[in-house]
Amino acid sequence: MRKIPKNASSKLYQLIVSKIRDSILSAQLRFGDRLPSLRKMSDIYRVSVGTVLNAYLQLEKEGFVLAKPQSGFYVSYKSSRIEAQHHHQGIPVDVEISDLVSMIFKTSQGSGFLSLGASSVPANLLPLNKLNQISRELIKKNPEHSSSYLYPPGLEELRIQIAKNCTYFDKVVKSEEIVITSGTIDAVNLCLRSVAEPGDAVIVESPSYYGILQSIEYFKMKVIEVPGHPRTGIDLEILSKILKKEKVKACVITANFNNPTGALMPEKNKQYFIEMMSHYGISVIEDDVFGALHFSDSAPKPLFAYDQEGIVQYCSSFSKTLSPGLRVGWAIPGKHQPRVEKLKYMSSMATASFPQHLVAKYLQSGGYERHLRKLRKSLENNMTEMINAIYSHFPLGTQVTLPQGGGLLWVRLPEYVDLDSLTQEAIKRKISIAPGKLFSTTQNFKNHIRFTSWLDFDSKMDDAFKTLGRLLKAQI
Amino acid sequence: MRKIPKNASSKLYQLIVSKIRDSILSAQLRFGDRLPSLRKMSDIYRVSVGTVLNAYLQLEKEGFVLAKPQSGFYVSYKSSRIEAQHHHQGIPVDVEISDLVSMIFKTSQGSGFLSLGASSVPANLLPLNKLNQISRELIKKNPEHSSSYLYPPGLEELRIQIAKNCTYFDKVVKSEEIVITSGTIDAVNLCLRSVAEPGDAVIVESPSYYGILQSIEYFKMKVIEVPGHPRTGIDLEILSKILKKEKVKACVITANFNNPTGALMPEKNKQYFIEMMSHYGISVIEDDVFGALHFSDSAPKPLFAYDQEGIVQYCSSFSKTLSPGLRVGWAIPGKHQPRVEKLKYMSSMATASFPQHLVAKYLQSGGYERHLRKLRKSLENNMTEMINAIYSHFPLGTQVTLPQGGGLLWVRLPEYVDLDSLTQEAIKRKISIAPGKLFSTTQNFKNHIRFTSWLDFDSKMDDAFKTLGRLLKAQI
Repeated sequence: MRKIPKNASSKLYQLIVSKIRDSILSAQLRFGDRLPSLRKMSDIYRVSVGTVLNAYLQLEKEGFVLAKPQSGFYVSYKSSRIEAQHHHQGIPVDVEISDLVSMIFKTSQGSGFLSLGASSVPANLLPLNKLNQISRELIKKNPEHSSSYLYPPGLEELRIQIAKNCTYFDKVVKSEEIVITSGTIDAVNLCLRSVAEPGDAVIVESPSYYGILQSIEYFKMKVIEVPGHPRTGIDLEILSKILKKEKVKACVITANFNNPTGALMPEKNKQYFIEMMSHYGISVIEDDVFGALHFSDSAPKPLFAYDQEGIVQYCSSFSKTLSPGLRVGWAIPGKHQPRVEKLKYMSSMATASFPQHLVAKYLQSGGYERHLRKLRKSLENNMTEMINAIYSHFPLGTQVTLPQGGGLLWVRLPEYVDLDSLTQEAIKRKISIAPGKLFSTTQNFKNHIRFTSWLDFDSKMDDAFKTLGRLLKAQI
Repeated sequence: MRKIPKNASSKLYQLIVSKIRDSILSAQLRFGDRLPSLRKMSDIYRVSVGTVLNAYLQLEKEGFVLAKPQSGFYVSYKSSRIEAQHHHQGIPVDVEISDLVSMIFKTSQGSGFLSLGASSVPANLLPLNKLNQISRELIKKNPEHSSSYLYPPGLEELRIQIAKNCTYFDKVVKSEEIVITSGTIDAVNLCLRSVAEPGDAVIVESPSYYGILQSIEYFKMKVIEVPGHPRTGIDLEILSKILKKEKVKACVITANFNNPTGALMPEKNKQYFIEMMSHYGISVIEDDVFGALHFSDSAPKPLFAYDQEGIVQYCSSFSKTLSPGLRVGWAIPGKHQPRVEKLKYMSSMATASFPQHLVAKYLQSGGYERHLRKLRKSLENNMTEMINAIYSHFPLGTQVTLPQGGGLLWVRLPEYVDLDSLTQEAIKRKISIAPGKLFSTTQNFKNHIRFTSWLDFDSKMDDAFKTLGRLLKAQI
């Protein structure tokens, strides 16, 4: 890990670095602006002038500011947060992304790999002690837990608990509206299949989680990618234009912390989006797997909360919050509930029994919300460290998003970067990354990487980012 | 349970009843033949004349024999085991069976229902003590069991154990050829999707498990039903004729104990079937979920064992042998392995971790084969009792199969029977049955019922069959 002042004011040092950086990234401080003087900052934050100086030097190292001798520190960074990328035609195309995805996952599953694009929250952030304690009790009290199928819609006890957890939706969800699934992607598949047939066109934000693109590929549907803004999500203007000319059956979307950009759709956009979908009679499948991982104090509302006409099918899981290997997710398919229930039966008969019982008991026991608060904090802290590391080690011209939740960081590298070669070089060094082209059928993201802030940021992580930075700089 | 002599010779009584019945059903004794005299049988079996008389009276009650005063007992039953039903056109059609299936399952899931067509082996026949003991050890030794995805192909430990269990295949299966799935139906879905696209024609035996028909419906493929013989399975002559005129992509088939008929394809048919499929370049997906539940001493070979060219994809699970709620199955997709692995990832990312670890440890611990032997015996005993009950209580003209494994019994009722009404009447009495039309898109099986011999046959079961018999007789 890079050196930071080891004194009591190290937190304030961090605060100053991130405040200034945020101001620059959000264009409150612009190229050429002078930073507040060391003395002034020392007064405001009640730290030594030396601490402020260290913070400014760190920002200089990251390429945000430049010290002018005898004058002070100036913003040297042109505001260049990743903006929406509008070069897609918006026509339905076949999806063939799965080869790439499996190649990358296969390569990086070996032991000793450090996965900077990890898809699972590591064990130390999960409530494993409690889950295991409940498992033991479950085996004792209900030894026949797995001796029959838990046919769709799945374990009632669990559905009741999930319904209780939906209070922030601003509408009442009943347990009988819920269908238990094997994780979010199973829920998305079932909901999608319930409203669209092979050959139908499906809208997604671009870039989008490869799992969503694969669902469309699985059912031989067609995808229309609509450009998304890395801060505000799907571009509603372009979407509106596309809907005027294309016949679209469904839209699969993550309004809260899109994967990979981390974009959070503003509340007014959500409202407008739902109105538009409703106007065109398009089914919305909402993947809200990250919704509970907001960094701000209150949960963002899902699209589902804005839906008065039952066009949204809500999908989520406990994969990012309790354990990915449980494979417990759920769908709230609205009026399509009977069909989704039936499709679940058709595709896999039932979800495994033990994990359903386990999650139900865990939720009944209380403490889920407390666990989530802790988890959110860790993800946010890791995110800050990761952004620091990227600014420290990556070449100038690198741009990042500033996610407000979820734990996904979308990084745009300078245009000259050869990401295929970087991915290969990184693999040789036992570092795996998730290259941008995983998230689109287009070539728009070939200089992007998705990182996740799920692994605790330690010196090994910092070294990995340093290595990537060195490899990138070597490409210049 | 119906009255049987309570003396020491009750086992011999049972033996005489079933020997004679089998002789009649297999046409060794034909209509009009005279049964051996009471005295002769008493000598052969070393029982009292009274016991033989009771056995003969039981057979008379079942409608197999008739006592002629002063003359003896004569076979009154015309050999009428269910024969193949050849009235299907063999053209590809859409499948729409799932509404019916879910209606029936929904209705009969209430508490207090006695399911005579039960889809799961009950707890008392499963090795739950051992599974739970292993679960406890697993939680202790590997508390992080579920904290990451077990990406396809799934847990290596488990695949190694499954490969070891494939020795009776007459060919070596390596662990890397196996893909772990969420039960058999998931395996069938993935294998089917790996070789066929929406709109493609798929061959199945008629009747076939509704799960297979639903897989075809799920992917919007077309089905061609080829008549099956209830003893020997798919009719190869008709199949050959159909293949000459129809373009077929795949065939999903259960050679060992077809669901619902219990048919076991003779070994020479298996060989010929594979040659035919190979000749026409048709992919075979073998659902062998019942293969391990043979009543004879040795396991029948799967089609997979006859396949030299890699056209068979083998599917099975532990749902019928360890616990259905585990949702642990597997595919051996041959040359399609990479594609099936990818499709597994696309459809549900992974199978739940805990059940995979659990089954792996269970298989490692030994004793699976011992458990299977016990299970097979129970299923066979229950089957005998069930056949007895049907012959005792059902109207004349009722015909049954004589399954050699699996535990499924296919019953043909007289033509006049209104099975919809019977199903409804049975549900009112908290008895659920699996009506024949679940197993076909045709109307060929509307007077058939599938029973399963998985529930222990007790007086409650006998009462249920008595009730069904009364309802049936009331329809005359």
